[in-house]
Amino acid sequence: MQEYLERLRNGSLKLYSLEKEMPAPDAVRVRRAFIEEQTGVHLDSLGSFTIGIEQVVKKNCENMIGAVQVPVGVAGPLAVRGEYAGGEYFLPLATTEGALVASVNRGCSAITKAGGADVRILRDGMTRAPVFAARDVVHAKEIADWVERNGDALAKAAAGTTSHGRFLDASTSVAGTSVFVRLEFDTKDAMGMNMVTIASAKIADLIGEETGARLVSLSGNMCTDKKPAAVNIIRGRGKTVVAGVYLPDSLIAEVFKTDAASLAEVNLRKNLVGSARAGSLGFNAQAANVVAAVFIACGQDPAHVVEGSTCITTVDTVTGGAYVAVTMPSLPVGTVGGGTGIDTQAACLTLLGVRGGGDPPGSHAKKFAEIIAGGVLAGELSLLGALAAQHLARAHQALGRGK
Amino acid sequence: MQEYLERLRNGSLKLYSLEKEMPAPDAVRVRRAFIEEQTGVHLDSLGSFTIGIEQVVKKNCENMIGAVQVPVGVAGPLAVRGEYAGGEYFLPLATTEGALVASVNRGCSAITKAGGADVRILRDGMTRAPVFAARDVVHAKEIADWVERNGDALAKAAAGTTSHGRFLDASTSVAGTSVFVRLEFDTKDAMGMNMVTIASAKIADLIGEETGARLVSLSGNMCTDKKPAAVNIIRGRGKTVVAGVYLPDSLIAEVFKTDAASLAEVNLRKNLVGSARAGSLGFNAQAANVVAAVFIACGQDPAHVVEGSTCITTVDTVTGGAYVAVTMPSLPVGTVGGGTGIDTQAACLTLLGVRGGGDPPGSHAKKFAEIIAGGVLAGELSLLGALAAQHLARAHQALGRGK
Amino acid sequence: MQEYLERLRNGSLKLYSLEKEMPAPDAVRVRRAFIEEQTGVHLDSLGSFTIGIEQVVKKNCENMIGAVQVPVGVAGPLAVRGEYAGGEYFLPLATTEGALVASVNRGCSAITKAGGADVRILRDGMTRAPVFAARDVVHAKEIADWVERNGDALAKAAAGTTSHGRFLDASTSVAGTSVFVRLEFDTKDAMGMNMVTIASAKIADLIGEETGARLVSLSGNMCTDKKPAAVNIIRGRGKTVVAGVYLPDSLIAEVFKTDAASLAEVNLRKNLVGSARAGSLGFNAQAANVVAAVFIACGQDPAHVVEGSTCITTVDTVTGGAYVAVTMPSLPVGTVGGGTGIDTQAACLTLLGVRGGGDPPGSHAKKFAEIIAGGVLAGELSLLGALAAQHLARAHQALGRGK
Amino acid sequence: MQEYLERLRNGSLKLYSLEKEMPAPDAVRVRRAFIEEQTGVHLDSLGSFTIGIEQVVKKNCENMIGAVQVPVGVAGPLAVRGEYAGGEYFLPLATTEGALVASVNRGCSAITKAGGADVRILRDGMTRAPVFAARDVVHAKEIADWVERNGDALAKAAAGTTSHGRFLDASTSVAGTSVFVRLEFDTKDAMGMNMVTIASAKIADLIGEETGARLVSLSGNMCTDKKPAAVNIIRGRGKTVVAGVYLPDSLIAEVFKTDAASLAEVNLRKNLVGSARAGSLGFNAQAANVVAAVFIACGQDPAHVVEGSTCITTVDTVTGGAYVAVTMPSLPVGTVGGGTGIDTQAACLTLLGVRGGGDPPGSHAKKFAEIIAGGVLAGELSLLGALAAQHLARAHQALGRGK
Repeated sequence: MQEYLERLRNGSLKLYSLEKEMPAPDAVRVRRAFIEEQTGVHLDSLGSFTIGIEQVVKKNCENMIGAVQVPVGVAGPLAVRGEYAGGEYFLPLATTEGALVASVNRGCSAITKAGGADVRILRDGMTRAPVFAARDVVHAKEIADWVERNGDALAKAAAGTTSHGRFLDASTSVAGTSVFVRLEFDTKDAMGMNMVTIASAKIADLIGEETGARLVSLSGNMCTDKKPAAVNIIRGRGKTVVAGVYLPDSLIAEVFKTDAASLAEVNLRKNLVGSARAGSLGFNAQAANVVAAVFIACGQDPAHVVEGSTCITTVDTVTGGAYVAVTMPSLPVGTVGGGTGIDTQAACLTLLGVRGGGDPPGSHAKKFAEIIAGGVLAGELSLLGALAAQHLARAHQALGRGK
Repeated sequence: MQEYLERLRNGSLKLYSLEKEMPAPDAVRVRRAFIEEQTGVHLDSLGSFTIGIEQVVKKNCENMIGAVQVPVGVAGPLAVRGEYAGGEYFLPLATTEGALVASVNRGCSAITKAGGADVRILRDGMTRAPVFAARDVVHAKEIADWVERNGDALAKAAAGTTSHGRFLDASTSVAGTSVFVRLEFDTKDAMGMNMVTIASAKIADLIGEETGARLVSLSGNMCTDKKPAAVNIIRGRGKTVVAGVYLPDSLIAEVFKTDAASLAEVNLRKNLVGSARAGSLGFNAQAANVVAAVFIACGQDPAHVVEGSTCITTVDTVTGGAYVAVTMPSLPVGTVGGGTGIDTQAACLTLLGVRGGGDPPGSHAKKFAEIIAGGVLAGELSLLGALAAQHLARAHQALGRGK
Repeated sequence: MQEYLERLRNGSLKLYSLEKEMPAPDAVRVRRAFIEEQTGVHLDSLGSFTIGIEQVVKKNCENMIGAVQVPVGVAGPLAVRGEYAGGEYFLPLATTEGALVASVNRGCSAITKAGGADVRILRDGMTRAPVFAARDVVHAKEIADWVERNGDALAKAAAGTTSHGRFLDASTSVAGTSVFVRLEFDTKDAMGMNMVTIASAKIADLIGEETGARLVSLSGNMCTDKKPAAVNIIRGRGKTVVAGVYLPDSLIAEVFKTDAASLAEVNLRKNLVGSARAGSLGFNAQAANVVAAVFIACGQDPAHVVEGSTCITTVDTVTGGAYVAVTMPSLPVGTVGGGTGIDTQAACLTLLGVRGGGDPPGSHAKKFAEIIAGGVLAGELSLLGALAAQHLARAHQALGRGK
Repeated sequence: MQEYLERLRNGSLKLYSLEKEMPAPDAVRVRRAFIEEQTGVHLDSLGSFTIGIEQVVKKNCENMIGAVQVPVGVAGPLAVRGEYAGGEYFLPLATTEGALVASVNRGCSAITKAGGADVRILRDGMTRAPVFAARDVVHAKEIADWVERNGDALAKAAAGTTSHGRFLDASTSVAGTSVFVRLEFDTKDAMGMNMVTIASAKIADLIGEETGARLVSLSGNMCTDKKPAAVNIIRGRGKTVVAGVYLPDSLIAEVFKTDAASLAEVNLRKNLVGSARAGSLGFNAQAANVVAAVFIACGQDPAHVVEGSTCITTVDTVTGGAYVAVTMPSLPVGTVGGGTGIDTQAACLTLLGVRGGGDPPGSHAKKFAEIIAGGVLAGELSLLGALAAQHLARAHQALGRGK
């Protein structure tokens, strides 16, 4: 240990190179010791992880010094009636925000009592949009035209880079001399940003060669990755999912201590008019809470909460009750790759029956997306119900005192 | 154990009531066992946590069954020159996304070599916006007028609910018969949503009594909490922070293998024109990646990544180099409350020297915000640099194979 | 004539200089003749205008060759109950779009039968936002701080440029090294962009001198002038106006052949959910139609239709009927300056009782804004009613065959 | 006359029915007299129009009482090198805003000296999006699926309603139980909203019959007509046009008294960063001014200025100068129908060589769109140049004193 610390101190060993000289657990231990020495801070708690990290240090996290532990609660059972998910699920929610699990749990209860949430996936495709520089606007149109006419060539270029993903479509947008080519792929059970990026690089090379377009950036922000953007809402990114449930008046009264008209009014004035007045791209109550908690539990990329939570919640008052639905235009999820293979995250995916690749390929990721949408619906129902009954503040007082 | 499982099975014991009958660790164990039994899934890995959970089950997570472990890597040292943060920091990043820590680390290296990132906090205030129903538009104006004229009464009502927070301002927006009152508070070292919600409830009661306004929802989505919204960008929410660094040409060449003009062009075509073309509210490369990783490491609310990551990145080409900056209008952070007290998360805050309340109150949260902005700047620099050098795809291929 | 044409041809006389050599009507005639000669097109119809143009060629239109005639229809009587407008008005609508006047007329009929539209102005202030370059983000904050602390100095600088306008407020926004200072003025009966621009130039000079900020552009697009922008919706620009009316069931049935629930459903699914789904900043049916037609009739700047029409329309179903309202956050109007003094436009303003400066100053522009909001409400009611009764297409077929 | 006035007074004759009893000019005269009598206001000036109104009162304007006269100035010659427009044009601008014609004229001068603006049309299609109610989300997906699979049937339904327009595409978006079907048509030389609405009604009936979807509104705001909306920017509406020009340094100095770097900086900080900071959907300087002025001169629907002016302006600094471009994603224009047939408006279209239907059909509208884009580019150049030279305020002082 001391020898390594000395080498780190004198710069003859780089902090990120430790894994090349020793097994991962040792490397993490030495690195943590070095950081402790440099900062005078004890980091023991970070070191008491139990996940296997041989792969983690290669695939998930450079310069690893340990792990944070995020509490996981379950909400459920949640009955889901999708095309891929069917049955009751216990939703694992990794969160440190008091009241969240209880809130989602209450929504699950209502949904399950109502017979389950109907869920459908409307679109599915992961995107990356390189941006090219054209010589002038005439050239810009030539590039766009070439791309629109040569889908087959693009597909072929992509096919050489991956056996899992499948090229779906290319759509072009011009802004002056900038040409954005939004490439969309079916990435099966992977969230797929990585395979899509690699395939896009190949396609971008081809476009450059054939048209003289100069590649400026492999990502041109029309992807749009991890930023809130209308293009994702309108064209979709990842899974476009919709979930809905009919709640009879009696159930609304029993579970939420309110009524259909109140639910509808809260949704109207808060989620629709309020969001409109705020210049928002999100028309929901707390979709991000549920998406974030499931994503962290299940090894998803938590930065994808940004687009994954752009949700529209609607409440229709119908005879004898209310029909409540959530629409999520851009939910990027995967059951292979990313953090899905880490022990604790894999356990959470297993809990939902979606660990690893599905049969047929893609079915696990789709099932997972359906369950998440059901969970988001539960969260919306519960918070709308609480607000309608005007006890949000009291709920916070009781459950989240420490915040 | 078996007795409890039996009672859970037959419904005489509720899953969420276990903590009332036994110590927290036992409750979590029984609950996990029950879920395992119900689903036939082994969840041992979730059970091997080491954090103390007596407080966690009360404040952070209901229905707890264990914990996920999220790998933490460090990026740094990162030199920050703020009004609260001054010195070099190792940034803890909880992530499962390969290449992220390495990417931020490279940005930190450039910043530190350049002498550090200048950071300033421009605004600070946490918000909640109840929505009221007015009888008609005439009444709506009366309500708005009353609120605008009675700031002192609102402040007094709020003061009765908290000794930590301080009422700052109320701004009103009308949409037909809906009146939104955006209440802003100084919440010191707490992120503060909870205290703000409680104070807002009190204020909402007062407004209702004095004006006849009918409270429809304690949150009217003009807050705007956890949804991307222009109101947060324009008026600010949490901390409004800006960070910038001047990089001389030689440093850009050394660290990023590119030049100032290329950085500027990538930023222009991708972050500005691309985001404009996409109808986006985010004009950056990967702010969400850094915000999410720090938030999870440090016990912040990860759903706040949504507004916390709405960042504008700018690159000015100046004599002999480039001045690169990030502007984050709505970064909600705290060093007390929420998940900040959990062992591993507290360790990460300690690593940054911001654990617990600061002296004076608020200084820890501000210092934390400054460091995060520096980290986001590092992430932007690194990704812009990588894109400019056109090796994003190759970086992914090398580091994130599993995705 | 021939002499002048010859001089225009050989370039010894500039097309825009004709007014310096002859009376305006002659200058316009010669210029038109020259254009006819150059293009071989007869433009007689443009020449048969009757408005006095001595002032027009100086203040309103350079290089004038004539005038287009836009048909004006009247809708009304429209009963308005505002703080400035009270009584019944015939709304002059300059339009070439068949069905528009008839549509608005039907809405006016409903409003007037219902006793009139309640209208209130919630805010009033015209804005201009120069953008400055700072040396770095530290300097950016210093500039912003100086502006926030020196409102009196800004007001004094502005006061030297105008006796009509009054400085109200300055709000700052930083983006990296760009500092935007949004200056707001009470411009009384003028729409006021011109006086605001002149005053802003003076203020910008002062800010530059005092802070070392470098003025990059007198307009930095946070004004935001003639672009759809959330800042105008959230902070207001020009007049922020709200208008509403209660329609009993019987009246809805009589005038619109539909019912309250149908009106509410169309508004919900189209104006709220549809606009949300479209990533829109406008949540209305046809506000722009009415704003454009009144603006052209009354000599307003028609490019202001862009922000002037960002309207939220709401329908509340209430006992025995519906309460329908329009909220217009940024309606820029004036009754002096711009095109308000041209004979035909002045006549239209006179028809509404708002020609020229009001007593007290500002009252004419406010009255005008209230009447417009009432007209927009009429248009919304009528189109929602038509859509609810599913005869939009038939209405178009009957009235607009030529399109 | 008196007899009719008496009948109008006693209600036995309706104001809108006058055309049924007498020739149009008489009807307009009687109606105006009645309004004068009711309001005590003289409206003579409105009555001195010279356009033929037999068709106008049927197709363009109900309840006509006269016409406003809007001054028309010319800017140009403007050299345009498009696929439809080629040559030099004098742009007719109907405006009452001093300095506008002069500003555009200066931009035209620069463009023409530079050899002309390159212009290209990237997309072309007019849209209407009915919204349907589904029973639940499962039904919503069925409806969307049916539409996606039955393009031929939709095309056939549309074909029965028009011989001019051609169905292009249907794209569906779901939000809970609301299903939006965005129908796109090639409307040749017509702007086409009317034919599109009629065809959409037919298609909507078919969708209803085949799927059980309940038509709620023939327009569901995903069209999006006359509201600023990302869907139009992303998918296009009307013509998507791009125009650009290369200006050498010498020309920038000569015409604009500034340099390429200053133009680029103003564009960056104002049009890109400023608009981003403002939450805007428009990234330009004054596109709306030019669009509005041409639209009014040429009989276009002025409410379409809203989407027609959502423009992105870009400035690339390139060797020896600057390449400046405007991108207009949703420019709805026509050369037949609407106000295009009125004498004065027809004259303005003739001036541009685009009056009436083109050969082949559609070529006139496309040529018109190209010229407008060139004009918008001229306006952007000129204002950017003026701002760069910091004399916007002085220009206003000199030219627009009356405002």
